Amino acid sequence: MVAYMGVNDLRSLIEHVGMEPFLKMLAERVEDDFRRWNEFDKAPRYASHSPDGVIELMPAADQQRFAFKYVNGHPKNTRHGLQTVAAFGVLADVDTGYPLLLSEMTLLTALRTAATSVVAARHLTRDDCRTMALIGTGAQSEFQALAFRALLGIDKLRIWDVDARAMAKFEANMAGQGISIFRARSAEEAVSGADIITTVTADKKNATILSGNMVGSGVHINAVGGDCPGKTELGSEILERSSVFVEYPEQTRIEGEIQQMPDDFPVTELWRVIAGEERGRTSLSQVTVFDSVGFAIEDFSVLNLVYDLMSAQDKSRQLDLIVEPGDPRDLFGLLKNAPSRAAA
Amino acid sequence: MVAYMGVNDLRSLIEHVGMEPFLKMLAERVEDDFRRWNEFDKAPRYASHSPDGVIELMPAADQQRFAFKYVNGHPKNTRHGLQTVAAFGVLADVDTGYPLLLSEMTLLTALRTAATSVVAARHLTRDDCRTMALIGTGAQSEFQALAFRALLGIDKLRIWDVDARAMAKFEANMAGQGISIFRARSAEEAVSGADIITTVTADKKNATILSGNMVGSGVHINAVGGDCPGKTELGSEILERSSVFVEYPEQTRIEGEIQQMPDDFPVTELWRVIAGEERGRTSLSQVTVFDSVGFAIEDFSVLNLVYDLMSAQDKSRQLDLIVEPGDPRDLFGLLKNAPSRAAA
Repeated sequence: MVAYMGVNDLRSLIEHVGMEPFLKMLAERVEDDFRRWNEFDKAPRYASHSPDGVIELMPAADQQRFAFKYVNGHPKNTRHGLQTVAAFGVLADVDTGYPLLLSEMTLLTALRTAATSVVAARHLTRDDCRTMALIGTGAQSEFQALAFRALLGIDKLRIWDVDARAMAKFEANMAGQGISIFRARSAEEAVSGADIITTVTADKKNATILSGNMVGSGVHINAVGGDCPGKTELGSEILERSSVFVEYPEQTRIEGEIQQMPDDFPVTELWRVIAGEERGRTSLSQVTVFDSVGFAIEDFSVLNLVYDLMSAQDKSRQLDLIVEPGDPRDLFGLLKNAPSRAAA
Repeated sequence: MVAYMGVNDLRSLIEHVGMEPFLKMLAERVEDDFRRWNEFDKAPRYASHSPDGVIELMPAADQQRFAFKYVNGHPKNTRHGLQTVAAFGVLADVDTGYPLLLSEMTLLTALRTAATSVVAARHLTRDDCRTMALIGTGAQSEFQALAFRALLGIDKLRIWDVDARAMAKFEANMAGQGISIFRARSAEEAVSGADIITTVTADKKNATILSGNMVGSGVHINAVGGDCPGKTELGSEILERSSVFVEYPEQTRIEGEIQQMPDDFPVTELWRVIAGEERGRTSLSQVTVFDSVGFAIEDFSVLNLVYDLMSAQDKSRQLDLIVEPGDPRDLFGLLKNAPSRAAA
């Protein structure tokens, strides 16, 4: 049997554990897994493109566990009340090849993306950060806000979205969280005075959400929304004067902000900073960019956390996804009662 | 919601439809999909190898549907009462990227492999075949036997397995099916006088189940068991004097019997024979080999058939694998009741 974590099960789990404790545990898992980067079997994601979107399979494995995520990206979906990005994932046992867990991953992706943003920020921001600009208040925004508050103490937000309803939704969801929110009238106004700038907009096109004159010295940019070919958020002049940190360069050069830059544009792998092999921020005036596109190891981290939390609770639902014949060679015996000839 | 086809659901479906009618419908689907080969987005499977086995993801898509299969291969699993090969699969809608169906695929893989073997045999055997040798009576064997009986009228089997218990299991499962079974005392005896030779053994190593002196002129060999690097069943001298037909050459040259041969060893793609672009059997004396390794389009075919049969029945189980927020931008709202601070 395979453990099942549906949307309702995950809601119960997060209610039981608490959102911020979950984000803290998750950030520890992501940091631990990035630190042992070379123990993972990594591969660029498999992508199947169609006129309206893409379907991707993102695998990652260490010597004990194999994980993969199925995820789509269909910008037009919101017109029909569907998610632009919906996902599910599987965790499996490397020794037997058997799946252990099937889980929803739309919510888990938002959670692991936010946790990874904070892991990067812990190594890349100045120490005295209090204020974050949040450009784009769509589906990912609240998770980013809560993760930065929980793990970095960011309690002042300056928000902007081209859609006022998205900002109203964000403010309603954040009510009572102890976060001071200033609703700006433009991206320029939002970033003014911010120590950290998080960009998490949704349009599938090259856009310039941030241009060079909007980014002061010492700022850390958490660039989350530019995550597929043709979709970027930062003016290239920002990248030219910044130190850029990435998850997996082979993938980020295709999907991230640096798709705008030459193939040899210098980047630093985040895992090397976490492992102490490379330096993160080196001066107060430096502009740092975490060019986040999302990597399969982050999905591995969150699936393992969920599986461990489920196992501790010992009340998970189970699916009969894998056959369990008494004799492994007798697969056919499972169907023996089926009539071999056509029914009348 | 995503439709769910577990092992028990599939058993019910096959009992309802009938095994042979299901195999016939499936063979039609496989043949139709192979005929329109160039409409598919194909890719070599993704494989994650470990000391004891492999985990693979096999994707295929046309313009309407995307399918993939998760499948392992762990020969040692039988020692622990587990399947060597266990699988599940997903069918998705290309327009939205949303999954439509999650299904067990261990049984479906055995069924689609047998259906594909028969599709190939319909184009490659002599017209007067009555007798098939079946070398290896493990988990796949009964499916092969029933498919060849249902679609090609093969009602005489000569079986051989190194494990007498496997042969006894096969005979018990086939009792009452109207198939005459001769239990041979060696592979040599089994193939003697057979029109078709199906090899479907399970060892993960290069073996010589068939050597050249065992294969007479005019025979069709349905080589199913040699399906991963290092695992072959036929002596190379057989391949040298045969016409070899394959699913997807890029994959078969790595995984199939022809991994023993030079990179430019001539093969014919089965789909071209089905589409009428190439000839199948051209003489009564020719030895033909279908070097079957299994391809993602066959999984696509069977998942679509199952989904269509389920939709017609209109009583499928559903999983809450994908979030359904009232507002697609309000993902966080689904978790709003979770306490943001740690519970006491």
